[in-house]
Amino acid sequence: MSKRLQEQVNLISDTLEKNSDSSVSGFLESMSPAEISRVIESLPLDLRGPLWRQVTLLKKGEVLLELQGILRSSLIKQTDEQELIACLSVMQMDEIADLDDYLPMSVVSAMVKTMDIQRRERYEQVKLYPDDVAGGLMDVDATAVRGDVSFSAVFRYLRRLRQREGSLPEHLDSLMVIDRHNRFMGTLPLSNLVSYDTSTTVSDVMICNVVGITPLTSALEVTRIFEDQDLLSAPVIDDKGYLVGRITVDDVINVIRDQADREVLGRAGLDQHEDMFAPVINSSLRRAIWLGINLLTAFLAAWVIGLFEGSIEKMVALAVLMPVVASMGGVAGSQTLTLVTRGMALDQISRRNIWKLAAHELAIGGFNGVFWAAVVAVVAYYWFNDLMLGLVFGAAMLIVIFIGALVGTFIPLILKRIGVDPALAGGVVLTTATDAIGFFAFLGLATVMLF
Amino acid sequence: MSKRLQEQVNLISDTLEKNSDSSVSGFLESMSPAEISRVIESLPLDLRGPLWRQVTLLKKGEVLLELQGILRSSLIKQTDEQELIACLSVMQMDEIADLDDYLPMSVVSAMVKTMDIQRRERYEQVKLYPDDVAGGLMDVDATAVRGDVSFSAVFRYLRRLRQREGSLPEHLDSLMVIDRHNRFMGTLPLSNLVSYDTSTTVSDVMICNVVGITPLTSALEVTRIFEDQDLLSAPVIDDKGYLVGRITVDDVINVIRDQADREVLGRAGLDQHEDMFAPVINSSLRRAIWLGINLLTAFLAAWVIGLFEGSIEKMVALAVLMPVVASMGGVAGSQTLTLVTRGMALDQISRRNIWKLAAHELAIGGFNGVFWAAVVAVVAYYWFNDLMLGLVFGAAMLIVIFIGALVGTFIPLILKRIGVDPALAGGVVLTTATDAIGFFAFLGLATVMLF
Repeated sequence: MSKRLQEQVNLISDTLEKNSDSSVSGFLESMSPAEISRVIESLPLDLRGPLWRQVTLLKKGEVLLELQGILRSSLIKQTDEQELIACLSVMQMDEIADLDDYLPMSVVSAMVKTMDIQRRERYEQVKLYPDDVAGGLMDVDATAVRGDVSFSAVFRYLRRLRQREGSLPEHLDSLMVIDRHNRFMGTLPLSNLVSYDTSTTVSDVMICNVVGITPLTSALEVTRIFEDQDLLSAPVIDDKGYLVGRITVDDVINVIRDQADREVLGRAGLDQHEDMFAPVINSSLRRAIWLGINLLTAFLAAWVIGLFEGSIEKMVALAVLMPVVASMGGVAGSQTLTLVTRGMALDQISRRNIWKLAAHELAIGGFNGVFWAAVVAVVAYYWFNDLMLGLVFGAAMLIVIFIGALVGTFIPLILKRIGVDPALAGGVVLTTATDAIGFFAFLGLATVMLF
Repeated sequence: MSKRLQEQVNLISDTLEKNSDSSVSGFLESMSPAEISRVIESLPLDLRGPLWRQVTLLKKGEVLLELQGILRSSLIKQTDEQELIACLSVMQMDEIADLDDYLPMSVVSAMVKTMDIQRRERYEQVKLYPDDVAGGLMDVDATAVRGDVSFSAVFRYLRRLRQREGSLPEHLDSLMVIDRHNRFMGTLPLSNLVSYDTSTTVSDVMICNVVGITPLTSALEVTRIFEDQDLLSAPVIDDKGYLVGRITVDDVINVIRDQADREVLGRAGLDQHEDMFAPVINSSLRRAIWLGINLLTAFLAAWVIGLFEGSIEKMVALAVLMPVVASMGGVAGSQTLTLVTRGMALDQISRRNIWKLAAHELAIGGFNGVFWAAVVAVVAYYWFNDLMLGLVFGAAMLIVIFIGALVGTFIPLILKRIGVDPALAGGVVLTTATDAIGFFAFLGLATVMLF
């Protein structure tokens, strides 16, 4: 949220807190739908409804799109069906397709009835694809011109289009160029259109470099193509070479942001759409699941410790030092895990370099294992005045740091193979492994060597 | 990395592995600088040099810009000074400013000598600002037109500009509009330029909505403004109202990506520019620091356990169960910490809602604390057949989950106040606190209640 927006949030919530019926539409008028959705999210529950009722019809649909899933559903419930239908009638086709899963069936069927044939066909086309592929991101209303016409004709076409529609599509940085069979030929950047003579033929200065996005290209792959090639927009072309739509960079930014949020929140077992002010009971239940999973893994570690009760009874220093071993293994392992998971997300890890990478991580694990083993052996020796205890502690440290690197390298590969997202589950699996191995190595070695 | 790129990487490394002198320039020709940098990063160390030598002068500068810091320096060292100067001469001013800190002084001063006065002035202007503010992101070569001229005049200007420079600036989606004193008036989207009559006057259809980016606006704030308002480019305006540059969405995507990388890698104590194939000794040393910090905190927790050696000696079950308490406190706390840290990053947390948020988190902590306290009390009772031990274990669990929520809420606020990034340091501070508190609560309660 930008500073200007932050100030507006404060003004709006001051106004509504005093009297929830007072008008804040003056503020809302100058704000983009994305900004209004940020404002709604930072308001407490009881002020969200009063604000929502003051958002204009023209913006309501886009505001809903920008909101988190749960909040979106809750505001839709508070909105009259006729009003929802009116909101939909002013939205773009790809936006409608992203929203309609959240709408009551009755609203969706009423909306489809109001569509003309062309619009209905487009709607059905967009609905073919899920959100996580190019087909779900694209806008089907791509503005296209023929390759064999002159710039003058293009200008005439665009001027007529504006007169008819009131405006050109949002984020128009280039026009799609098609041949007379409607096959995709290339793109014409507006910066070329405005800087060559009006007698120029489109195909002479269009860009033919096809980036190869099909409707089924994954959203992740689309973000990579946009980043690798610094694109503002890209055509979506089907396998027969026909233009089916256009993806713009703002959709790509949303995908990048969502993915980053998902990764950061997912690591703590939080839902991507966690609302800071959701009802306590809902938040508690969602988080309880993660705590439960963690409890199981913690009891597994406790069970490992329980195997060595006898040794701990003989030497209570083992109980004092054992969490240090487990913790260092966890940290060393998570460094490797994070790096490998990220390398996989960027597709920089393949069968051809995975063994080099594993060797690299194990070498680092070996180096740090030896170093910290020496450090902790000395510390334990002075603390408990027991040379053998120091040696056992050091040896366990070496083992757990080295094994941390080993499991940190292979856990994400195995998880991906079995279809689990390593960015979400990797941390739990790793900690379970390093805890169990750490306790086992330290207490097991102690049992064998010290008694 | 896109699939197509992945295939090219495989072909290139196959070719170079057979013979490091063989030509791969055919592949490189069709690739963008960002793509070439991805390829270099995924090649093993010994093949990077041979590939680098084959990159053309025109792309070398931009490839360097896209590379991670350490790798960038290493390739610069492998490049002839004359060649570096030639690379710089074809780069944009903002790109040069991002690169020159990595270049030998002799190259920079030779480059400045080759500049004409206008270029040298621009260079000095860009060098005024650090990378993390708008001034460091902006391009100073913004294409501007006067507000009082007609579209025909604009077209004439743009056609002349193309003839003179060979091309218009990259990512040109709108022109800046200035008055006759060079003050900023608004922006003219190219989509307006191409769809109104040529007799239209610029100021009649320009967009005056100023987003308010100054050269000192933080890069983070810039990304928020772009996301909130779905921008492709934005003017940078100084406090006197003069246009000083232009920021484009591709720079913003880089900032978003960098920030996400920094957060994910920083949590594991990794450098943002960690190279998967950096020399083992360098990687080991960088990671050793984080392990060392963690070791200190782990010894702190061990010291807390050491305070209760007598109790553990009397009842070794305490040693078995104590890691479970600490671990659950850590997980509960990190859920709150992650949510609050993210809310702060999005500026959704302010003095006016922090107490509501804290109450919300504490209520969730209370709910989950009571629930899991009951669960673990029963488990411990059946495991060790000791009712009092079960009750003490449950009570400690309730305390640590509740306190986890408390410290999870306030640690990021305190860290931010003292100028430390909560996304990087929050996890360590939290784990230290929940470990120490968890061990103390459980062992302390046990000492008081059980003996």
